[in-house]
Amino acid sequence: MKPRDRVRALVEHKRFQQFIIWVIVVNAITLGLETSPVVLREVGGLLHVADHAMLYIFTVELVLRLYAHGWRFFRDSWNVFDFVIVAISLIPASGPFSVLRALRILRALRLISAVPAMRRVVSGLLAAVPGMASIGALLGLIIYVAAVMATKLFGTISPQYFGDLGTTLFTLFQTMTGEAWPDIAREVMAAAPLAWIFFVIYILISSFAVLNLFIAVIVSGMEKTVTDDLVEAEDRHAADQAASDALILAELRELRREIAELRQREPR
Amino acid sequence: MKPRDRVRALVEHKRFQQFIIWVIVVNAITLGLETSPVVLREVGGLLHVADHAMLYIFTVELVLRLYAHGWRFFRDSWNVFDFVIVAISLIPASGPFSVLRALRILRALRLISAVPAMRRVVSGLLAAVPGMASIGALLGLIIYVAAVMATKLFGTISPQYFGDLGTTLFTLFQTMTGEAWPDIAREVMAAAPLAWIFFVIYILISSFAVLNLFIAVIVSGMEKTVTDDLVEAEDRHAADQAASDALILAELRELRREIAELRQREPR
Amino acid sequence: MKPRDRVRALVEHKRFQQFIIWVIVVNAITLGLETSPVVLREVGGLLHVADHAMLYIFTVELVLRLYAHGWRFFRDSWNVFDFVIVAISLIPASGPFSVLRALRILRALRLISAVPAMRRVVSGLLAAVPGMASIGALLGLIIYVAAVMATKLFGTISPQYFGDLGTTLFTLFQTMTGEAWPDIAREVMAAAPLAWIFFVIYILISSFAVLNLFIAVIVSGMEKTVTDDLVEAEDRHAADQAASDALILAELRELRREIAELRQREPR
Amino acid sequence: MKPRDRVRALVEHKRFQQFIIWVIVVNAITLGLETSPVVLREVGGLLHVADHAMLYIFTVELVLRLYAHGWRFFRDSWNVFDFVIVAISLIPASGPFSVLRALRILRALRLISAVPAMRRVVSGLLAAVPGMASIGALLGLIIYVAAVMATKLFGTISPQYFGDLGTTLFTLFQTMTGEAWPDIAREVMAAAPLAWIFFVIYILISSFAVLNLFIAVIVSGMEKTVTDDLVEAEDRHAADQAASDALILAELRELRREIAELRQREPR
Repeated sequence: MKPRDRVRALVEHKRFQQFIIWVIVVNAITLGLETSPVVLREVGGLLHVADHAMLYIFTVELVLRLYAHGWRFFRDSWNVFDFVIVAISLIPASGPFSVLRALRILRALRLISAVPAMRRVVSGLLAAVPGMASIGALLGLIIYVAAVMATKLFGTISPQYFGDLGTTLFTLFQTMTGEAWPDIAREVMAAAPLAWIFFVIYILISSFAVLNLFIAVIVSGMEKTVTDDLVEAEDRHAADQAASDALILAELRELRREIAELRQREPR
Repeated sequence: MKPRDRVRALVEHKRFQQFIIWVIVVNAITLGLETSPVVLREVGGLLHVADHAMLYIFTVELVLRLYAHGWRFFRDSWNVFDFVIVAISLIPASGPFSVLRALRILRALRLISAVPAMRRVVSGLLAAVPGMASIGALLGLIIYVAAVMATKLFGTISPQYFGDLGTTLFTLFQTMTGEAWPDIAREVMAAAPLAWIFFVIYILISSFAVLNLFIAVIVSGMEKTVTDDLVEAEDRHAADQAASDALILAELRELRREIAELRQREPR
Repeated sequence: MKPRDRVRALVEHKRFQQFIIWVIVVNAITLGLETSPVVLREVGGLLHVADHAMLYIFTVELVLRLYAHGWRFFRDSWNVFDFVIVAISLIPASGPFSVLRALRILRALRLISAVPAMRRVVSGLLAAVPGMASIGALLGLIIYVAAVMATKLFGTISPQYFGDLGTTLFTLFQTMTGEAWPDIAREVMAAAPLAWIFFVIYILISSFAVLNLFIAVIVSGMEKTVTDDLVEAEDRHAADQAASDALILAELRELRREIAELRQREPR
Repeated sequence: MKPRDRVRALVEHKRFQQFIIWVIVVNAITLGLETSPVVLREVGGLLHVADHAMLYIFTVELVLRLYAHGWRFFRDSWNVFDFVIVAISLIPASGPFSVLRALRILRALRLISAVPAMRRVVSGLLAAVPGMASIGALLGLIIYVAAVMATKLFGTISPQYFGDLGTTLFTLFQTMTGEAWPDIAREVMAAAPLAWIFFVIYILISSFAVLNLFIAVIVSGMEKTVTDDLVEAEDRHAADQAASDALILAELRELRREIAELRQREPR
């Protein structure tokens, strides 16, 4: 057994994988505890040491898996996911990268790649994404067009909400989630009374597009389960039917064979 | 007839169950009336006596059912439901347990276990829950990760919303219901202009997960009704087809029998 | 032709019904115009006269239909709908009944009963209602229990929202529509920090129930259209199959007849 | 080759269409950049020239397509869409028409008509519209009736929200999107305590109608995909079945032919 195969046997061993899952869970809890100033003051040093130890375990595990699978490691997108998450944690989080400290909790998401049941759920969810792509692109185009228009029309009236393209995009995203849009609309309408036309049309079109995004997901979910059930039921019946037809055909051929015999024995 | 069987016959008698349903309804009304200070001042004593009397009825009914069914009583989860609700009412509601006084109205929920039609509806709703479990767990993980991240990132900027993990979890639950999130986002963005990235990503991912929770329920509802209708229709046709095939086969076998006779009578 | 039959021929005549539809539309517009003080000052008298004239037309139409159909008139619920709407307009709207003046616009809803396409749409919508009844009753029970509980728990903390049962029911309806609940929750949580438990549970349960109400409607809509399409396709195939089987059977019987002939001609 | 055919070959050439798509994308970006005062100050002149050049390209393209297709050009609604969008840009945007400057970004929507995949998505979305028309009309009627009623009832109580028919229509549209209605309701209820009846009934009826609008779209989406899948599966089985039946029939007819031969050779 080559050393590479032995390492692969190790990293694919059930016990090893369960150990990693436990480390992920414990790390998620310690990172959660670190958010509390009280806990940090009391046992902050301990948490810090534990966090470093667990990061060390993750790094070693990743190196072993890299060694075991070689370059094919990166062919599986779940491996790439694990690699990126561990890599983020290894970047020294100081100075301009201090925001990365907050991203360490992303390690808890490794639970998704480590637990097969979670993996299946996420794969199922992602399967619906391609069906959403074209409507998503259309929705993006609609929001962009609406944002340029609103910035030009309302930029001077309400700079807080429509001051520049970025602000307007955020405001329109907020409007699309249906949140607090009347306040914004009434503020704009005080200066531009016809602004309601923009808001009503934008809300109707964007809700219609979002609704169709939802339907794309629902239909995709339906196709996976309901349709499969029915097609399966139908296939079962078709198989029954084919068996019954085969029986009839066999009976008919036997009959023909017997009649052929009858003819041969016949006096000519 | 053993005494236990007689008690069982009593508690399963239609009249007895209708009487209990009426007591539940009357108790729900009296507990509702108790919320009014005016009513409480006028007929508070009467309501109090009635409430005690009805709790006594519920307790006696429960003891009878316990006696009738023995330990098997706890195998039916509806019985456990009834038991817990009555038990809550029997705990003396004073001192630290004064909140239990407010839980007495939970007795009205016994209507669900007492009326068979309600029981069926709730059973139907609960049937959708297992299908939601895996996406629910994923959603929980996403919220936890987002909460730890937000507490670290925005804890000092906006302690009112992101001060500690509990507060952040509540804020993110609120954001997930799509309520008043722009106020929070704009408050945070005043200090951390890039915070919109967190909010937009969180809203998109959590709505997508919630949407898929909904779809799990819809698909489960579909499978129960639409699919059943169709599979039933198909089974009916398959049965028709099988009957027709059986007719053809019988006819064929009769034919074979006749030809066999023909051969036997033939001169060799 | 009896006078009653002649009246019936009149009220069922296409021209007559189109005339009534036009009167309904014109009346809806004049009642809309009456809401404008400017219009009322300028042509208020004219609108008043027109409104009286149109109410007169509706009354005459109703009397004619009543005469034409006799008591069977009230068997059709659309007729009862028309009758109630016209009756509301005929009650003198003064003193305590002045609110009835605002209900005159309900006459515009007669468009639904007068236009067959609208009637079909509304009938279709109402067909979904029975399927919603049991979940609706459950939702009502949940809201009632939550309201009694919230009034007891939060009545003294936040009398504005939970002061008495009626106020609480309105607050909980508002919470169920997902509107402005965080403001209320945060106000209550300032005094009762654990109140989030009530709000989170109530929101989860009530959204789940509302979601299932939606699904009941969706499934009902599905059953009417998608299932019908499929069952129809299946029935068509079953008919094709039955025809094909009948052909096979006929062929088989012909064969049997011929063999029987063969046997009779045979020398014994 | 006639000149008209040569022009048609040009405008339908893949390279030409890709060039137009690139111009649309670049124009969308330059129009987006124009919203930024900083960019406008730095390279405003350049953007202005580029914008004019690109409008010139669009105009020439449209004239070529008009020449190539003649009057049949207007038979395709996508062509009409392109024509209107370019025409809007050509109207001198000054004085009362200055709002048209903001509509120039609508040119970016030409991406929908230029990219075939986008065209298909939008055609798919629009296919759901006829199924929504009747419920949409009903919803319009309900909102109109509710608006006239609310203006009469609450116009003097809360002129900000219900002052005239237009304002009320906007308020009711806002209420239908479920946004900030409790603030409005509580303001009105302070003067008219029974106003909750209006709000609760309006919200229930309008959400039910909107829900059914959604279902019309979902059912329409379902019919296009799920049903097609199933009907296709069923058709495949029916074809299999028909082939198997044809085999049985052929076998039977062969048998009959042989028996007929047998009879002819028989001694009479």
